[in-house]
Amino acid sequence: MRWQKASTKCMNTVKQVAIVGGTHGNEMIGVELVKKFSLHPDLLQQYSFSVQTLLANPQAVAARTRYVDRDLNRSFERDRLQNQTLTRYEDRLAKQIDQMLGPYSDAPVDVILDMHSTTSNLGLTLIIDEENQFTLQLASYLQQINSSIKVYSTIHSGRRQDALRSLAKFGFCLEVGPIAQGVLTADLFQKTEALIYTILDYLEQYNRNQVSLLNRSLTVYRYLEAIDYPRDEHGEIQAMIHPQLQFRDYEALHPGDSMFLTFEGETIYYNGAAVVYPVFINEAAYYEKGIAMCLTQKENIIV
Amino acid sequence: MRWQKASTKCMNTVKQVAIVGGTHGNEMIGVELVKKFSLHPDLLQQYSFSVQTLLANPQAVAARTRYVDRDLNRSFERDRLQNQTLTRYEDRLAKQIDQMLGPYSDAPVDVILDMHSTTSNLGLTLIIDEENQFTLQLASYLQQINSSIKVYSTIHSGRRQDALRSLAKFGFCLEVGPIAQGVLTADLFQKTEALIYTILDYLEQYNRNQVSLLNRSLTVYRYLEAIDYPRDEHGEIQAMIHPQLQFRDYEALHPGDSMFLTFEGETIYYNGAAVVYPVFINEAAYYEKGIAMCLTQKENIIV
Repeated sequence: MRWQKASTKCMNTVKQVAIVGGTHGNEMIGVELVKKFSLHPDLLQQYSFSVQTLLANPQAVAARTRYVDRDLNRSFERDRLQNQTLTRYEDRLAKQIDQMLGPYSDAPVDVILDMHSTTSNLGLTLIIDEENQFTLQLASYLQQINSSIKVYSTIHSGRRQDALRSLAKFGFCLEVGPIAQGVLTADLFQKTEALIYTILDYLEQYNRNQVSLLNRSLTVYRYLEAIDYPRDEHGEIQAMIHPQLQFRDYEALHPGDSMFLTFEGETIYYNGAAVVYPVFINEAAYYEKGIAMCLTQKENIIV
Repeated sequence: MRWQKASTKCMNTVKQVAIVGGTHGNEMIGVELVKKFSLHPDLLQQYSFSVQTLLANPQAVAARTRYVDRDLNRSFERDRLQNQTLTRYEDRLAKQIDQMLGPYSDAPVDVILDMHSTTSNLGLTLIIDEENQFTLQLASYLQQINSSIKVYSTIHSGRRQDALRSLAKFGFCLEVGPIAQGVLTADLFQKTEALIYTILDYLEQYNRNQVSLLNRSLTVYRYLEAIDYPRDEHGEIQAMIHPQLQFRDYEALHPGDSMFLTFEGETIYYNGAAVVYPVFINEAAYYEKGIAMCLTQKENIIV
């Protein structure tokens, strides 16, 4: 893959930020953090920009399920939002959210921080959908503050078009794991909360023109392709993630490494030509999407 | 608690065994093991008893959800099974399963092995609902084969009345974890499969009168009470499992130990009078049941 030139998209001043949870109703850390911020609005009031919170999919949250009719976080393509014939629950919800804070609303937001969690071992991951300078410098700052933070770029996967965060000029997904759907763990709750404050602090520095990056390096994992489970002719999966790969997100997968284990105990090996770095290994919600993992390429770039 | 005298309930010969998966549709290890056994019936044919398999809740399995209308594994009280006015999906399913293999069916089963998984760190757990000699000796045998196997007795919690496994003369729940709902891990899949074969081997030895226990000791964790999350007046949870307790199932919880952590960061301590051993800590499906964990008492008994 060629080096990606950062786009020139930029922002003068951050005025409106939205912190979103419950885009998926069974990802409890975001849900409970939105509730906490609603109970303690003072936590978000010391900034030069305004911060609103949004519990994005209340019916799914109430049912502790990812979604009711369709995945809300795949429902924000402009075509869908403008299509009056789409009236299922998440279609209507997407239109409401777009009208509330989208680019054509009365109060468009500059930055969306959408809080997600995953059964994969992503630790603390910032997902970026574009590689413009504003985005990359924020990502670099976060890695300098906390070197365990990983940055996953979906620039080649189209998430800039369909995700809730795409409504903002700059959208970020905070993806933490591993954690089971429907479960809260205090450790990841506190780490996610701290990451939110770190990002808000950065935006404040940005507004005050006080950003100082210790260096301009950034390690980014760029999406290459999604890999499905081996399946039979009926679409039934025939193998599981290999034990040697389970929970090894962001680690190098070499040609010939173990990838899957069939139910009969046979190993299936990675037969690609190059070293890749899988992410979203064994994410519960991706079985139905036909994704066992996403392969990425690891890049060290200057921002 | 007083020592429980083993009941005299016994069995002459094991004739019919049912291996059940998918009682909860999002506990994938049991689902996929039932599918494997269906594809490879030879795996279950070398015994002096017949083994049938059952995918208990097919609609929930298809939807990758615990249940459709109500928890199937709380739907087998005899009163419910005989109540013609109960017609929701799992009510109908429970009646069908009762008619297929229950005590009043044409082909009542002697032993049910119901395969479950949990987001709690239960490792390999055998759940027993009664402490009769047959059950305790089987449990002791399993611990002698694999010392990591834990035995959790629900004798004081009423599960003998409402669980699917209660349809058999001797019902056992295999509960493995930690694993997220909707996810398969190869490690726990293979361990569960091995445990099934070990139990079937034991039943074969039982039929041949060849059971030989190296010793008659058994460590059992007996249910004492369920503990809910701290909640506000609206029923909303106010705290999470404390990081020092998360994943510490079967470990001693002493009076004064950390138990919960509020969203504001305050620790709530265990204020009981005695040392207890929590299980089902932070099980995803138990939030709606108002259970943050079940406290048990650890007992070493002679079977």
